[in-house]
Amino acid sequence: MSNQQLDQLRSQLDEVNLELLNLINKRGDLVKEIGQIKEQQGTNRFDPVRERTMLDHISSHNDGPFEDSTVVHLFKEIFKAGLELQEDDHRKALLV
Amino acid sequence: MSNQQLDQLRSQLDEVNLELLNLINKRGDLVKEIGQIKEQQGTNRFDPVRERTMLDHISSHNDGPFEDSTVVHLFKEIFKAGLELQEDDHRKALLV
Repeated sequence: MSNQQLDQLRSQLDEVNLELLNLINKRGDLVKEIGQIKEQQGTNRFDPVRERTMLDHISSHNDGPFEDSTVVHLFKEIFKAGLELQEDDHRKALLV
Repeated sequence: MSNQQLDQLRSQLDEVNLELLNLINKRGDLVKEIGQIKEQQGTNRFDPVRERTMLDHISSHNDGPFEDSTVVHLFKEIFKAGLELQEDDHRKALLV
């Protein structure tokens, strides 16, 4: 019985993993678009105030089971990856 | 025009952030359930083979814009947070 339950939970986990992957990439596309507009405007891609606002907004909606500190840590990693994506774009733009 | 576009993209980003938060927490709940079953079975919570299989499965579905290496890095952080959640549960179980 509990092996069957385990298999079911694992297959749900696999689905959630792919949904997370899609959302992470969707976020990447949005961040790239934002980077391109900021590039045109000549404004800095990294905006610590906006990042803090996003983290506060996220934490205020956190109902667990993860602690706010864990959620903030994970989102900081996601934000960093997004910034690197914008920087890659910027480098490619300079090389054209 | 592009300021309005920026505001729109940012509001989309805020939505994606909250969707990500929900999925991360949904994943946390699943991982806790899996941990409880494994606890009953007396099997080890950390399963490097299963983790590798999940990472391969995720990478094989990755269409970007993030590189596989970035996706793997982010999911390793998410897995680590999940494992810590299971360990917290285990410690609480021991204290009861």
